[in-house]
Amino acid sequence: METKGLDDLFLQTVQDVYYAEHEILASLPELELAATSEWLRNGFAQHRSETKTQLRRLERVFASLGAEPAPRRCRAIEGILSEARDVLRAYQQTSAGDAGLIAGAQAVEHYEIARYRTLARWARDLGLNEAALLFAESLAEETAAEQFLTDVAEAVMARPAAGLS
Amino acid sequence: METKGLDDLFLQTVQDVYYAEHEILASLPELELAATSEWLRNGFAQHRSETKTQLRRLERVFASLGAEPAPRRCRAIEGILSEARDVLRAYQQTSAGDAGLIAGAQAVEHYEIARYRTLARWARDLGLNEAALLFAESLAEETAAEQFLTDVAEAVMARPAAGLS
Repeated sequence: METKGLDDLFLQTVQDVYYAEHEILASLPELELAATSEWLRNGFAQHRSETKTQLRRLERVFASLGAEPAPRRCRAIEGILSEARDVLRAYQQTSAGDAGLIAGAQAVEHYEIARYRTLARWARDLGLNEAALLFAESLAEETAAEQFLTDVAEAVMARPAAGLS
Repeated sequence: METKGLDDLFLQTVQDVYYAEHEILASLPELELAATSEWLRNGFAQHRSETKTQLRRLERVFASLGAEPAPRRCRAIEGILSEARDVLRAYQQTSAGDAGLIAGAQAVEHYEIARYRTLARWARDLGLNEAALLFAESLAEETAAEQFLTDVAEAVMARPAAGLS
């Protein structure tokens, strides 16, 4: 009766994250342009470069599975990014603009942390050691990006008007 | 020219999380029923009780702001839960069922961790000390829930067939 297993769920989730990273890459220029803090803007620019590397890693995982790189629509990232864009547009001209940007970007990072942690675990379980290493690398980058955003946010908080310039 | 500030963004985000917690509460019974591991099932049951407490805390925050509790549609949690339900339905009868459930629940936890961390920071910045404490409590619960799911997942992984009973 059983037709699907962890290997299927693994591939499906790799496709999901492949889609998500493409959506994130497409959104980053808008976040970068909207940031008033140079520190934050540079952070988004760096994350754009990391995201491209993460896409290449996912393509190496597809290759290691003998599968074509194929995105699978991920409504989770669509929802997260759509909320981030709404906040960006509503608060862009206000003192809370960067705070809103950071919050949206942190929601994105946490989604990726959850997914890469899961994928690294499943890859280990399935004996896919190369994939496990590639996911661990992306996970480390996402964790550092989340910490960077927290650091910028703390700097925002340290200013009386909750603004950041 | 500036009409909106961090206080507006804060209230909007409280409303967003209030909606998200309601959606999560509505989804937990389905996850609980689908779990084959008793350990996991009990974890979902406990989280249902925690989610109710978190909703009460959000209502205390609304009261402290002199605002009526009002949910604001959160497409991020809708997307995350919709993906979790799709995986649940596709893998429920397979050995990967619990692994998929855990992955979906971890994505939910990470979303909440991101939001409560942001809200605790903004509350401190706005001088809303009671709200900051309430969010810190919910954040601690979500972090523990995420760790619990990781522990269960590691136990799943420790079994040869990647199943869990």
